[in-house]
Amino acid sequence: MDIEKVNSMDFREFVDVFGNIIERCPLIAAAVWSQSPFSDWKDLERHFSAFIDALPQSGQEGVLRCYPDLAGHELQRGTLTGESLREHSVAGLTSLGEDERLRLAELNAQYRARFGFPFVLAARLSDREIVFRELGRRLHCPSALELRTALGEVKKIGRLRLADLFGVDPARL
Amino acid sequence: MDIEKVNSMDFREFVDVFGNIIERCPLIAAAVWSQSPFSDWKDLERHFSAFIDALPQSGQEGVLRCYPDLAGHELQRGTLTGESLREHSVAGLTSLGEDERLRLAELNAQYRARFGFPFVLAARLSDREIVFRELGRRLHCPSALELRTALGEVKKIGRLRLADLFGVDPARL
Repeated sequence: MDIEKVNSMDFREFVDVFGNIIERCPLIAAAVWSQSPFSDWKDLERHFSAFIDALPQSGQEGVLRCYPDLAGHELQRGTLTGESLREHSVAGLTSLGEDERLRLAELNAQYRARFGFPFVLAARLSDREIVFRELGRRLHCPSALELRTALGEVKKIGRLRLADLFGVDPARL
Repeated sequence: MDIEKVNSMDFREFVDVFGNIIERCPLIAAAVWSQSPFSDWKDLERHFSAFIDALPQSGQEGVLRCYPDLAGHELQRGTLTGESLREHSVAGLTSLGEDERLRLAELNAQYRARFGFPFVLAARLSDREIVFRELGRRLHCPSALELRTALGEVKKIGRLRLADLFGVDPARL
């Protein structure tokens, strides 16, 4: 993928390719297409971030609610998106023992009840130990701070997904 | 479905039920959940509309880009959402002759090229004759007016989908 190719895409092709940069939010990719042409993939990334930043708080919470629980029902049922399944796998979340899985489900439920959105973390930059530690820590953060933290993770996940599509080494991000 | 039941839903249930009120935009249902509790289904409808109205223009265009062409590739490929397939069927768009289908594809392509989003029409309030007439007419409207018209159709489609879920007779809308 190079940026000239991206700039030549009609909106259908663009949404087919970038529709899941923000999990299950093709609306955001479809909106970002309005800003074409892009100078490089970082420019594209900036437009995704800017769109999220400009949403009202309910919309930002809405974005977060489109993400699955880590190692939750969707992993069990096989209904994760391909991107999300890969991220789960890299972080070792597809091979949790039963005890760990139940403990994570309980913490996820506490987090959802507290904040009204799921715990979102860039799993590819993480492992199961970090997942448990971060979830335990963020569960006690003030709501406004936690919303900002979670949206930061959404952007990190999006950056890694974009880097994949453009063949950029994540270690160089 | 009654409004007490809706108001008791967590965000996962809510998005499962209302995620396609706005075609392929679960983000919008997920954002609307922030406004719970709702006084009745009309109140719920108002929150969907208000969210769309508050989006920047790129976001409103993004919403429109999540809708399929009428009688286009997605109908051919069998990838329409259930709601959209039903709407196509009611308007007689699933049984077009080859000539009509090709003519509609040509008009849809002209419309997309002109406005940068697909032609959206509340097909359930329509039939194939109205589809052709409206597409021919709207193709020549000024862009700003056409964006407003298209978003009005998005809201009509959403109202009909909500009415279905609440068992309201569409004739009484």
